[in-house]
Amino acid sequence: MQPIANRMLNYLQPQMYAKFTMLANQKGCVNLGQGFPNFPSPQMLRDALSEEAQTESLQYTMTSGHPKLLNSASKFFEQQIGCKVNVDKEIMVSSGAQAVLSCVMQGVLNPGDEVILFDPAFDLYRPMIEFQGAKHIGVPIIPKKLNNKQEIIKRYRNGKFQYSQDDDWELDFNYLEKVINKKTKLLLLNSPMNPIGKVFSTEEYNQLADILDKHPQVVVCEDAAYHHITFGKYQPFNYPRCITHPRLKDKTVCVTSAGKMYSATGLRIGFAVGNEEIIKGIKAAQTYHIFCLNPVIQTATARCLDQTIDGKYFQSVKNLYEEQANMLLKGLVDSRLNMNYWVPQGGYFVVTDISEIQIPEKYFNDNGVRLTRDFAFAYYMINEFGVVCIPCSPYYENKALGQNYVRWAFCKTSETIQDAINRLK
Amino acid sequence: MQPIANRMLNYLQPQMYAKFTMLANQKGCVNLGQGFPNFPSPQMLRDALSEEAQTESLQYTMTSGHPKLLNSASKFFEQQIGCKVNVDKEIMVSSGAQAVLSCVMQGVLNPGDEVILFDPAFDLYRPMIEFQGAKHIGVPIIPKKLNNKQEIIKRYRNGKFQYSQDDDWELDFNYLEKVINKKTKLLLLNSPMNPIGKVFSTEEYNQLADILDKHPQVVVCEDAAYHHITFGKYQPFNYPRCITHPRLKDKTVCVTSAGKMYSATGLRIGFAVGNEEIIKGIKAAQTYHIFCLNPVIQTATARCLDQTIDGKYFQSVKNLYEEQANMLLKGLVDSRLNMNYWVPQGGYFVVTDISEIQIPEKYFNDNGVRLTRDFAFAYYMINEFGVVCIPCSPYYENKALGQNYVRWAFCKTSETIQDAINRLK
Repeated sequence: MQPIANRMLNYLQPQMYAKFTMLANQKGCVNLGQGFPNFPSPQMLRDALSEEAQTESLQYTMTSGHPKLLNSASKFFEQQIGCKVNVDKEIMVSSGAQAVLSCVMQGVLNPGDEVILFDPAFDLYRPMIEFQGAKHIGVPIIPKKLNNKQEIIKRYRNGKFQYSQDDDWELDFNYLEKVINKKTKLLLLNSPMNPIGKVFSTEEYNQLADILDKHPQVVVCEDAAYHHITFGKYQPFNYPRCITHPRLKDKTVCVTSAGKMYSATGLRIGFAVGNEEIIKGIKAAQTYHIFCLNPVIQTATARCLDQTIDGKYFQSVKNLYEEQANMLLKGLVDSRLNMNYWVPQGGYFVVTDISEIQIPEKYFNDNGVRLTRDFAFAYYMINEFGVVCIPCSPYYENKALGQNYVRWAFCKTSETIQDAINRLK
Repeated sequence: MQPIANRMLNYLQPQMYAKFTMLANQKGCVNLGQGFPNFPSPQMLRDALSEEAQTESLQYTMTSGHPKLLNSASKFFEQQIGCKVNVDKEIMVSSGAQAVLSCVMQGVLNPGDEVILFDPAFDLYRPMIEFQGAKHIGVPIIPKKLNNKQEIIKRYRNGKFQYSQDDDWELDFNYLEKVINKKTKLLLLNSPMNPIGKVFSTEEYNQLADILDKHPQVVVCEDAAYHHITFGKYQPFNYPRCITHPRLKDKTVCVTSAGKMYSATGLRIGFAVGNEEIIKGIKAAQTYHIFCLNPVIQTATARCLDQTIDGKYFQSVKNLYEEQANMLLKGLVDSRLNMNYWVPQGGYFVVTDISEIQIPEKYFNDNGVRLTRDFAFAYYMINEFGVVCIPCSPYYENKALGQNYVRWAFCKTSETIQDAINRLK
């Protein structure tokens, strides 16, 4: 008997994040792999959870979400993003942004549909698409330039790297126009982008809108899990977005994460906001999966949104993450590893290019299977430096494109980042 | 643009439970529809949630579940069910029993596979099966006898209805043998059974095992969400079960619900226990949907399991539910509605037969669509009696088989049940 469905057979192993976190723990490494903050979650959230646990009903809530949370989130999004939300029709809550994304795939994709991703794309997107019998097409985003140590350090002033056009990663619009077709049902993008920290520009969205005008069947899913962590000229929540772009917003569902917003990845509260029809479809998907969410974590999140609606809390969060990003990037530049660098515009991560690193041959061999350079590098780091980073080839349709990139998480305490820096010196 | 996937188009309306709960609220009815307890959840659970919110990590947990919860649940199941669980391989936690069931479908079913259900089957099973491209086949369970008021009241002694073989609903094994075939991948049963309160007997499982021996590819999913609410000769957790049946246990995944166990349907903690291979498949499904659960609700649940592992708490819960069941059934027998009755063996519900009720013609008409008798009866009850019950035809493959049955929930306070009884007098 083979009890497991075919669609799952390639996905029985733990995800690479879990594997690398396990390795980090086993080998006493500094874990800059999995993107979870290792500093304390805000006391405001703990207190809200404690208090709601005493008073809130513990029975089923509505599938779309607890009315209190839907109201608070709608108000928050209106005030901070400038996005007016019909609370009955244009918003849904699910168990983390990932569950929202999964519901989008189930609610929108038919077998045979095609989904366009921009590579490097968060690796969990692809299985979710495949599980619906749909096909993913990765359109590459290419760095304009590799910045070596001498080049990147010139942009370091007063403890901060200044973003310049040399840090741009450029979307291949020609490639996009070539692959988009009448089978394309969904375009999924992530801004600020995991792993590369790119924030798409208004000009890029204008160009995208031009292309999508020719393909009106395409739904846009904007994964904005890091919408509160934007650096340089961009303010938290306020940066070019599909959900506020005049020509994109009506075809967009925007996905965000309260867990990311309150540095508590275990909170498991994510939002979908957007087009009423898309929300209907994903609500149906939710009805027949988790059905509804725990009311306590919903009303506690509502309280946090109410308490932070003026945005001040997120200014300090953004400042913290920007400091950590600069600290880590400076440490990587100063390390004995001869890499190439880019200044991120937001998110949890920096990506470096490892094409010039000499990786000992033994790290390419995994029980007789030859690993790509990024994986070999990650094992080299674990074994000889005691630092965990994440290989980027899994983020690519064409793995070869990603084999020289690795991702380092800066959503960590200064002590953790300093420890990593010391090990890489 | 039609943004919604075809698989969802039949499921865009709220479920009937939500609709009837909405009607109950609008019309000031007593709600014996949706199966959620309306008495207070245990303080033990609220306190555990409050305390864990202050101390537990708020970051990602393992996809299979928080180690504390997996350990506590495994110990609990071993002690109370007599089912030895390998905590690393044979148990998984998801966001409520329903999410576990959805993961089972995703993890086990290929397009074209067939799933056998026993009708009346909980109506949420069917869409979950369809979403995988699989087909459901309902094998009817038929009441041996209709018991009228005079017959059922003879079995009422000292405030309690005595279960007799006249209350049996019998599985059509001939039908089962006819429809089971090499495409059958899953057999899904529910005991104690929603809606009819049936507990399958050891003899029935023996017969089932004989049939399944001839079809070794079939996986058994035992939905035991009500395993702590068993009446008469059966004790909480201790009744004939697939997961402990010597010839069924190795091919079974058993699904249970902490939310149901602690009368808190909003808790959203469900368990899958069973065959290591099946667990692997459903863990993969979970990895790419909710990824992991909130740690606070997991460790709080672990504490409750630890505190109740001796089973005393559940003895009192069972006694409470049994009292409510008897109170409601007596009220329905004494009502001015001339129905037929059965004594339930467990669960949250009683089902009655309404074949002899004269339903005013106008309740059959829903904007020009002719309703089945059970729906017409439910609207008749709402409008002329102020009581909400649930029509049972949605639980059947062959809707005609269910049109004379309705479901009444007794997981309600004595005040609520008395209020309903007064309205039906």
